[in-house]
Amino acid sequence: MSELPDKERAFFEWYNEVLERSGITDKRYPIKGMNVWTPFGQKTASLLDRLIRSRIEPLHYEEVNFPTLIPETEFRKEGEHIKGFDEQVYWVTHGGKTELDVKLALRPTSETAMYPMFALWVRSHRDLPLRVYQIVSVFRYETKTTRPFIRVREIHFFEGHTVHLDGAAAETQVREDIRSFEEITRALCLPHLRDRRPDWDKFPGAHYSIAFDMPLGGSKTLQIATVHYYRDNFARAYGIGYEDSEGNRQVPHQTTYGISERLLGAVVAMHGDAKGLVFPSVIAPVQVVVIPIFGKERNEGVASFAAEVVRTLTNAGIRSVLDDSDERPGAKYYGWELKGVPLRIELGRKELEAQGVTMVNRLGERASGSVAELTSVVRNALAAFDQALWTRALNQLMGRLCRIAAGQPLDPEKVNVLGWCGRESCGKQVESTPGLSLLGTLEDTAHFEGLPEPACLFCGKTEGAVWALAARPL
Amino acid sequence: MSELPDKERAFFEWYNEVLERSGITDKRYPIKGMNVWTPFGQKTASLLDRLIRSRIEPLHYEEVNFPTLIPETEFRKEGEHIKGFDEQVYWVTHGGKTELDVKLALRPTSETAMYPMFALWVRSHRDLPLRVYQIVSVFRYETKTTRPFIRVREIHFFEGHTVHLDGAAAETQVREDIRSFEEITRALCLPHLRDRRPDWDKFPGAHYSIAFDMPLGGSKTLQIATVHYYRDNFARAYGIGYEDSEGNRQVPHQTTYGISERLLGAVVAMHGDAKGLVFPSVIAPVQVVVIPIFGKERNEGVASFAAEVVRTLTNAGIRSVLDDSDERPGAKYYGWELKGVPLRIELGRKELEAQGVTMVNRLGERASGSVAELTSVVRNALAAFDQALWTRALNQLMGRLCRIAAGQPLDPEKVNVLGWCGRESCGKQVESTPGLSLLGTLEDTAHFEGLPEPACLFCGKTEGAVWALAARPL
Repeated sequence: MSELPDKERAFFEWYNEVLERSGITDKRYPIKGMNVWTPFGQKTASLLDRLIRSRIEPLHYEEVNFPTLIPETEFRKEGEHIKGFDEQVYWVTHGGKTELDVKLALRPTSETAMYPMFALWVRSHRDLPLRVYQIVSVFRYETKTTRPFIRVREIHFFEGHTVHLDGAAAETQVREDIRSFEEITRALCLPHLRDRRPDWDKFPGAHYSIAFDMPLGGSKTLQIATVHYYRDNFARAYGIGYEDSEGNRQVPHQTTYGISERLLGAVVAMHGDAKGLVFPSVIAPVQVVVIPIFGKERNEGVASFAAEVVRTLTNAGIRSVLDDSDERPGAKYYGWELKGVPLRIELGRKELEAQGVTMVNRLGERASGSVAELTSVVRNALAAFDQALWTRALNQLMGRLCRIAAGQPLDPEKVNVLGWCGRESCGKQVESTPGLSLLGTLEDTAHFEGLPEPACLFCGKTEGAVWALAARPL
Repeated sequence: MSELPDKERAFFEWYNEVLERSGITDKRYPIKGMNVWTPFGQKTASLLDRLIRSRIEPLHYEEVNFPTLIPETEFRKEGEHIKGFDEQVYWVTHGGKTELDVKLALRPTSETAMYPMFALWVRSHRDLPLRVYQIVSVFRYETKTTRPFIRVREIHFFEGHTVHLDGAAAETQVREDIRSFEEITRALCLPHLRDRRPDWDKFPGAHYSIAFDMPLGGSKTLQIATVHYYRDNFARAYGIGYEDSEGNRQVPHQTTYGISERLLGAVVAMHGDAKGLVFPSVIAPVQVVVIPIFGKERNEGVASFAAEVVRTLTNAGIRSVLDDSDERPGAKYYGWELKGVPLRIELGRKELEAQGVTMVNRLGERASGSVAELTSVVRNALAAFDQALWTRALNQLMGRLCRIAAGQPLDPEKVNVLGWCGRESCGKQVESTPGLSLLGTLEDTAHFEGLPEPACLFCGKTEGAVWALAARPL
């Protein structure tokens, strides 16, 4: 098969092609932006869901599942929220041949489905905090160009919703959610940026929005998750209240936490290369492929050695497959590399005699080990692979950032870090550089050692100035 | 709290009340028939999904996830199918303020979403068999009275879809699916009936439909799953074809397999009693509750003994909780019985001294065992509980069946087994007994020892006569 398009020069051609050839999604479904999760894609998505659950449940979130449809009357209760989604909501108007009395929205997110119920569930301070999440499809009628995982009309979505006694408790939750997302992205080897959206770009109805943005090359960034603090905006609109320990009625504060399938898009976009997908081990449907090398003719000793290696790994909980087909080893390597398998084990006569394994990871690094310690040898190789993947991604990230000093122009080919006074009039000046907009103010300076005191790039003010990001959000 | 309504005399009052008090669902959501999966309900549903997956994946089904929406143009390709669902489909007509060119159906089931893609996926005999499943929400605009789990408008649904070389291979799949469902229901302690729906009541578009029906008391039955053989009806409508090994184009044969949340409704309805829910251990969110018995004042020795027992069970993978609250033991028993926990362990000074456990299962059977063998003692107690639950359910089932001999009238208070010649004119005569209809022809005679050769109850013919079921399907 021909080579993949060049990722650096033609990112989206590369992206579309790698998705199609690997078979991780099928976008030939007859509705634009609604794609099929193939067996391969679904396995990956399930592993990603499992990773999210593993980091969420220790925070005492409990899983729920709310209806997909929301009556228009409930949907319209919070004014900013409905304004934000008015152009994007799919409406159900008929049941059979009957026109419905009240139109039903396909949830674009579930605040307006959940909060009427929260108003019934929360009565007393003893009912708080309330923390629930669901992993469901949400729907947005996107009019921009759709792209698998990145901009779709049916979105596989994790949404966490919490209710707290007061603002302080809610903002503590925001910090815990952020920490959990840092753990999730660490496991996925995805270093990224964290920032607070400017007021004109926060989630509709939120008091503030913290976003996680992934630089993808050039000035492009992808929002991969958000945590919002709602204050009591929704609680007031939906009549959520509680009786405090003195018997007074209070209005609680709320947060939400959202992670969409874009996170999988970010894995593909960040780690993928000229050979195809590259999966961090935690979500790789196949972590290890074992390929017997037969030379001129099939060798039953090698074949059963390979089968035994796969059995041992599988029993140890390592997702492993044996590729015992008749294809040439080179063709097998090509196919498994395309599918992003972290580790390949090659076993021939030499390995059989030495009772050893030869391992090649998806970054091309070779190592060997003893069969006697197979499980730990392979676990260590996977951990080393993840670490190398993280380091490579971090280097790529750093190369995509550019700090703009006073008097310098913004760089349209980078993610820019600039001083900003916080006023909208200055923030909007970012947009005079084609393609760029103000992403938000920097919340995490880990990738920016030695930042000086900021001054606004546009008005020069230092008072109240903070570091902000300018980029081209996808 | 007052007693639950009497299950035998007022089944639906009992059913609604037990669901509400246990908190397994919340039906106060502002759309009739669309209920909230609460944390408790969601945990149960996840365990049920896990059970289904564990019996499906050995049959080489692979999980997928297709879009929720189906273009009207695709939906209308199979004539019988659309006729069957025309009154029940929710239609999306608008995206934002824009009227859509092609209306979109919220899937009532996914044949018409999947099969256009199967037409792309299947090219050669080497692509067959194709076996996929998904666990998703499906939607039906029900106009009859809705009831949680039993008749809802958003349905949590397992659907398996297969494509085969020919009818023989497809019908082998039907048998394998049936066997897997027998395993699932055995684990849920749900004996039931299996029958083939009459032609006028088969799934729209199917060649034949095998249904699993659960007698619920009186003449009531609940369809808890179906397996359908489609022959090539859908394949022809959706242009699914393959090239056989001689290069000739062939049309494949298809099957489907559906299990809805009704299966959870059947668990509630069959096993529940005057104290509340009763869960078989495989789907019990809490399998064991450990309650320290303190007497007049809290005893730290007993408290830490109880905590240690829970730790040991949890480490062994048994879903266990410690109820260490200040409530009286009796109030605790009441609460956990309501939630259907299979096994309660009571630990007081006596047990601490003897290093033993006192166990009471949800059917009221008491046993004791040694802490030294805690894990196996508890595993055995759970297995014995499941066996007792199965036996009780089987006895109930047998008491709900009635074989009708020639010349006898149908019994409107039982599920009737009668001879039937197979003609619609005779089959429809069942309906002259108020509430009853012909459910189908008996596929499994396990519950009917010594059935003689049948003769039609209505025309007396023996030629072609089979045993059939008459009941009041919910």
